[in-house]
Amino acid sequence: MTYAAGRHFLQIPGPTNVPDSVLRAMSAATIDHRGPEFAELGLELLRDIRPVFGTTGPVVLYPATGTGAWEAALVNTLSPGDRVLCFETGHFATLWQEMARGLGLEVDFVPGDWRHGANPEVVAEKLAADRAYTIKAVCVVHNETSTGVTSRIPEVRAAMDAAGHPALLLVDTISSLGSIDYRHDEWGVDVTVSGSQKGLMLPPGLSFNAISEKALAAAETARLPRSFWDWKPMLAANQRGFFPYTPNTNLLYGLKEALRLLYAEGLPNVFARHARHAAATRAAVRAWGLEVLCLDEREYSGSLTAVLVPDGVDADKVRALILDRFDMSLGAGLGKLAGRIFRIGHLGAFNDLTLAGTLSGVQMGLTLAGVPIEPRGVAAALEYLQDN
Amino acid sequence: MTYAAGRHFLQIPGPTNVPDSVLRAMSAATIDHRGPEFAELGLELLRDIRPVFGTTGPVVLYPATGTGAWEAALVNTLSPGDRVLCFETGHFATLWQEMARGLGLEVDFVPGDWRHGANPEVVAEKLAADRAYTIKAVCVVHNETSTGVTSRIPEVRAAMDAAGHPALLLVDTISSLGSIDYRHDEWGVDVTVSGSQKGLMLPPGLSFNAISEKALAAAETARLPRSFWDWKPMLAANQRGFFPYTPNTNLLYGLKEALRLLYAEGLPNVFARHARHAAATRAAVRAWGLEVLCLDEREYSGSLTAVLVPDGVDADKVRALILDRFDMSLGAGLGKLAGRIFRIGHLGAFNDLTLAGTLSGVQMGLTLAGVPIEPRGVAAALEYLQDN
Amino acid sequence: MTYAAGRHFLQIPGPTNVPDSVLRAMSAATIDHRGPEFAELGLELLRDIRPVFGTTGPVVLYPATGTGAWEAALVNTLSPGDRVLCFETGHFATLWQEMARGLGLEVDFVPGDWRHGANPEVVAEKLAADRAYTIKAVCVVHNETSTGVTSRIPEVRAAMDAAGHPALLLVDTISSLGSIDYRHDEWGVDVTVSGSQKGLMLPPGLSFNAISEKALAAAETARLPRSFWDWKPMLAANQRGFFPYTPNTNLLYGLKEALRLLYAEGLPNVFARHARHAAATRAAVRAWGLEVLCLDEREYSGSLTAVLVPDGVDADKVRALILDRFDMSLGAGLGKLAGRIFRIGHLGAFNDLTLAGTLSGVQMGLTLAGVPIEPRGVAAALEYLQDN
Amino acid sequence: MTYAAGRHFLQIPGPTNVPDSVLRAMSAATIDHRGPEFAELGLELLRDIRPVFGTTGPVVLYPATGTGAWEAALVNTLSPGDRVLCFETGHFATLWQEMARGLGLEVDFVPGDWRHGANPEVVAEKLAADRAYTIKAVCVVHNETSTGVTSRIPEVRAAMDAAGHPALLLVDTISSLGSIDYRHDEWGVDVTVSGSQKGLMLPPGLSFNAISEKALAAAETARLPRSFWDWKPMLAANQRGFFPYTPNTNLLYGLKEALRLLYAEGLPNVFARHARHAAATRAAVRAWGLEVLCLDEREYSGSLTAVLVPDGVDADKVRALILDRFDMSLGAGLGKLAGRIFRIGHLGAFNDLTLAGTLSGVQMGLTLAGVPIEPRGVAAALEYLQDN
Repeated sequence: MTYAAGRHFLQIPGPTNVPDSVLRAMSAATIDHRGPEFAELGLELLRDIRPVFGTTGPVVLYPATGTGAWEAALVNTLSPGDRVLCFETGHFATLWQEMARGLGLEVDFVPGDWRHGANPEVVAEKLAADRAYTIKAVCVVHNETSTGVTSRIPEVRAAMDAAGHPALLLVDTISSLGSIDYRHDEWGVDVTVSGSQKGLMLPPGLSFNAISEKALAAAETARLPRSFWDWKPMLAANQRGFFPYTPNTNLLYGLKEALRLLYAEGLPNVFARHARHAAATRAAVRAWGLEVLCLDEREYSGSLTAVLVPDGVDADKVRALILDRFDMSLGAGLGKLAGRIFRIGHLGAFNDLTLAGTLSGVQMGLTLAGVPIEPRGVAAALEYLQDN
Repeated sequence: MTYAAGRHFLQIPGPTNVPDSVLRAMSAATIDHRGPEFAELGLELLRDIRPVFGTTGPVVLYPATGTGAWEAALVNTLSPGDRVLCFETGHFATLWQEMARGLGLEVDFVPGDWRHGANPEVVAEKLAADRAYTIKAVCVVHNETSTGVTSRIPEVRAAMDAAGHPALLLVDTISSLGSIDYRHDEWGVDVTVSGSQKGLMLPPGLSFNAISEKALAAAETARLPRSFWDWKPMLAANQRGFFPYTPNTNLLYGLKEALRLLYAEGLPNVFARHARHAAATRAAVRAWGLEVLCLDEREYSGSLTAVLVPDGVDADKVRALILDRFDMSLGAGLGKLAGRIFRIGHLGAFNDLTLAGTLSGVQMGLTLAGVPIEPRGVAAALEYLQDN
Repeated sequence: MTYAAGRHFLQIPGPTNVPDSVLRAMSAATIDHRGPEFAELGLELLRDIRPVFGTTGPVVLYPATGTGAWEAALVNTLSPGDRVLCFETGHFATLWQEMARGLGLEVDFVPGDWRHGANPEVVAEKLAADRAYTIKAVCVVHNETSTGVTSRIPEVRAAMDAAGHPALLLVDTISSLGSIDYRHDEWGVDVTVSGSQKGLMLPPGLSFNAISEKALAAAETARLPRSFWDWKPMLAANQRGFFPYTPNTNLLYGLKEALRLLYAEGLPNVFARHARHAAATRAAVRAWGLEVLCLDEREYSGSLTAVLVPDGVDADKVRALILDRFDMSLGAGLGKLAGRIFRIGHLGAFNDLTLAGTLSGVQMGLTLAGVPIEPRGVAAALEYLQDN
Repeated sequence: MTYAAGRHFLQIPGPTNVPDSVLRAMSAATIDHRGPEFAELGLELLRDIRPVFGTTGPVVLYPATGTGAWEAALVNTLSPGDRVLCFETGHFATLWQEMARGLGLEVDFVPGDWRHGANPEVVAEKLAADRAYTIKAVCVVHNETSTGVTSRIPEVRAAMDAAGHPALLLVDTISSLGSIDYRHDEWGVDVTVSGSQKGLMLPPGLSFNAISEKALAAAETARLPRSFWDWKPMLAANQRGFFPYTPNTNLLYGLKEALRLLYAEGLPNVFARHARHAAATRAAVRAWGLEVLCLDEREYSGSLTAVLVPDGVDADKVRALILDRFDMSLGAGLGKLAGRIFRIGHLGAFNDLTLAGTLSGVQMGLTLAGVPIEPRGVAAALEYLQDN
């Protein structure tokens, strides 16, 4: 049993490995959330969070995890009985539309095979067919954490524009923000939902809504009940760097440090790093003779790679063996993919040698679990890394 | 300018000074929230949190701040148009009933002078008059953080029992839990709302609902829309130590350490310590020749003391001077008490010498601000402390 | 028993309360002590440590506690049988001359009453009498940690200059550096000995020798055996930011942060803060009706105040009671002062309210121990603080 | 440039990667080193450190780095002019005998090729020839950090016993303690020298002497001057858990946690883990077609592996490339091996996947540096790991 020594490999697609300097920043003493020192911190963060969303508009910070930000996006913009268009891209898209139903919305849920992103052509068809503009919002998960498939938001936007349809575009970037190129303003997104515990390299506990002018206008008339999630008192208090109720100050300290790290590296470098690690991972998967879940190369995820195991293999048993033998956590198959895949997270605070260690653990684990693979994946990944 | 050196005195009535060992615990690496190590932690916390609420029933943990737990208490138990009985004990009681209205409830808001707790006799009258049982819940803030007045929950309960009325009893213990004696089960409370950043000595970011059997039953038929705050999936996932969505793991590490500290000291000792510090603080206030806001000695708060300043004095200017000269944060007067009072928090991780430093800062600050006081408050407090 | 809660008051005259940001800095990952990142850190520290010593010359950093820096000052500059002039200013001066004897030096130890500093007139006499220049070094403890008496180094220097004597001047600043004005270059000190755990606000583990040109020249011929303490390889490796053997890297991280704090406050402000707190403490002592050990007002220490207890009182029992009841550590009487005094440390990361808490603990403790005092010391100190 | 993200790989043979829990333990507040809480800590550590040395006798803890413990071993047991027998096993053995000379000892330095350990046969010869018992001590470096060669201490001891020679046996275990099986008592070692920053998984700053009865007796008559390093006041103060001068308290907190981790894993498991990682590393080196510096398989080090680069290759350039491209620090060739080797540290808090990442970085770095290797080393190591 060697697993007790050394550092755990947390290679689920989030929460991700939090940099030590972020953890240290979070351990500073909590300050008065109504005092001048806090106001300065608040104004700084509310300004500096914007570039990572690709927006110059407001971003609301919730002292809550990402599921809350899903709810916030819906309750601030929609009214009971409103119709929304959702796409079955995977487990989380399914949960989001369930939430929408539960909140009293009517959901048009376009079925999917969990191996593709939201289809822009279907967006076009659906909106074109909706002459009465009964669809009030199109909801898309940018990067499906359950599948490793990244939907093409610019093409979705283009389809909406082509249809001349006034629906809002709500996008979940929980596992893409800070890892995969994303542009709230340029892509015409109305509400971008996100969380702290993936590309932002923070522990879970903070979540976000980036909000367009159009979404702000919609909030004026939206009638779903809301209080904790209400943008209005948030945006009002944010003017002076404060929050309408107690913020989770210590995570805000962490956010300040995480943003510093991201901007020090440079967002284009961050995105390129993730794309490169994703490509190296796919090279490993193919060299093992296994299949990447994502079928469309335009939709490969920079954050995680979901790997199909051969028929008859229980992916969860492989994961358990890897956890036991090599002290590494991998992501499980969720929902209809349970036991069929495992997911390798390669996002956040991550580098070449940690990826090499990660893929080595997967390769040894697959071998020890008796899965028939070619033990050449690590070598293929190293070749990719050293050549690119 | 001496204020830059040494430790800030955070003597607002929450967030409170977080013990170093809690901050250190929170800086451990985030783990897989779906793995076996997490399940063990989750089960431990879900069990060990109960005694601090005085319950053997379930306590739901939200990865969100306290305002969310207010919302949770309402949306899980009530339906649109339901009538609730609230008491104007101060700023936070006012905000809670505003939230209730905003969520579509009808509120019977009993006016108050912000110097008394909820009046059990009024509870008795109101319920006796409500023959049709249209009042579905009585909402009381146990310790009004804005006033330093503690409502007598057992007497409220007795009044409800005497009326034989079936309304639920919802109690906010955000600034009393872990500081002032509280007994969810014994006192027949149906939902206890609380947060992490006061007596629990944690940073903000966690909040709680302790839930009675009767409240659970009410949740079956309550029709306010809910998703993030829904007890049902929480309680289901909690069975195995998990959460239906990503918990804020690092605060849970802190909770484990904070509970260890509370139980190591012993809850009765914790409550006695707070009561003793509150009495010493009132001794100081009186020796200064100032007035404690709370008028009924049965309702003195163990968590904080609100102090009225003489007419013509701006309490906020005194606070600003104290912050500038002595690096201490005190609580402001909120709402209708703005500028009229300041609040001294003496809760959480606190001891005699820190109280002495706190009161010394208040005494010097009042003097330097030109407020006419007798400079004998600190001496009076020290006498109280050494004699008790 | 209230002592378990809240923060311990560490009011011994060192180690002092370490600022949280210093502790956090020290918890960064250890780096390669031979790599480029380390070299940058090393060069920065070796440059930035100088102003705190008041020197533009080299300061050697030892990965060892202060006693080692005493030894280093002796073995680098002296040869077996050399004569040194020492002054019995207290316990630490006594220990230092014992070390000198143990290392093979001949010590001329001028007796003292432990209530005065080194007498410049005696320096003048001794050196004038030493026509043969057999005295090779004069050793003075700048601030006697055991007594709270600060020797007047400029006057000692003047006496040496007046005598035209070539002896080296070696000064221990372990409990004065970063607390009491000190000027290695201007005062013509040859070796300044210091440590990390007092005014520098670090944990123990680092110690220092600031070295004059004359001391460097003396080292060329000094024949006491030395290896770990040898300046020569240190100064050589320091040229590029390195050390001849493994440095204690994590304390160096702390030193960087501690220097940042000191320079942010400004050294003159730091010294004034200490002097002000010392004066407030003496005001308290006198108001209690007790006696400050230090008899000469020109020699009052800014770092600590030693307080004589009345005859028949065991100061150690008072300290034990204060530790037990109020969770505060005070300094014991050492050597011939055991049981006769207690020492209040008011140095390092310290501020008005922490001083007020400290003095409150002393006042309550003396009272509870039955020591006959006037309970007016805290009030006197507060008056001093608010008026100055 | 991807190197800025993620965690640095510190794969020099010490300082090693410090576990987060050790760093956190070290960031607790410094306490009074003369108080009862400290005494308890001191007694616990002085007891619990013994098993890791394989001794039931005293272990002295110095608040200083390892070089100081070398000096301590010599000055406590020897007198000016005493003769010691040393072996040129590498850079550190060379430095130690230089120190001995500098301190006034006479050194018999047996030449070596830096690819073998101390030769027990030479020990036998030298001692047999020393009829007059002029050799007072045999000094051996257990694990040469500069070469990755582990001397066979039991055979050295056996040779000494066979010769019936009374010389002391002094052993440096700085890079073996807590990584490679070591038994102070069973092997009859008189002074074991060690440090904190390798197998003990601490930052540098603590060092050790484990002392036999015979060494204690020798100290009674040894005449090398000593003060800071003197065992006598240490052992006296240690009786009650204290130290004769200020200890470096925060590293002691770290030591407590590090010992907890070592004993939780179990020392035999710790040693087996290191041996297994060393074997996997050698498998990689051979698969690359390179040569391990250590020539005798009985002397392979469990802590580090030194790798010879082909003629014409500058090992330091390879290391610089690896640092730049892959953010990994490797050990340089020291002294006469400068540029000829690089050293891979695989000791301390370390596991299979971190080793895989380490070897991946070496393989990619060698390739990118143009060193002619077979890129099969990582695969060979993974095979070894999964099969053993």
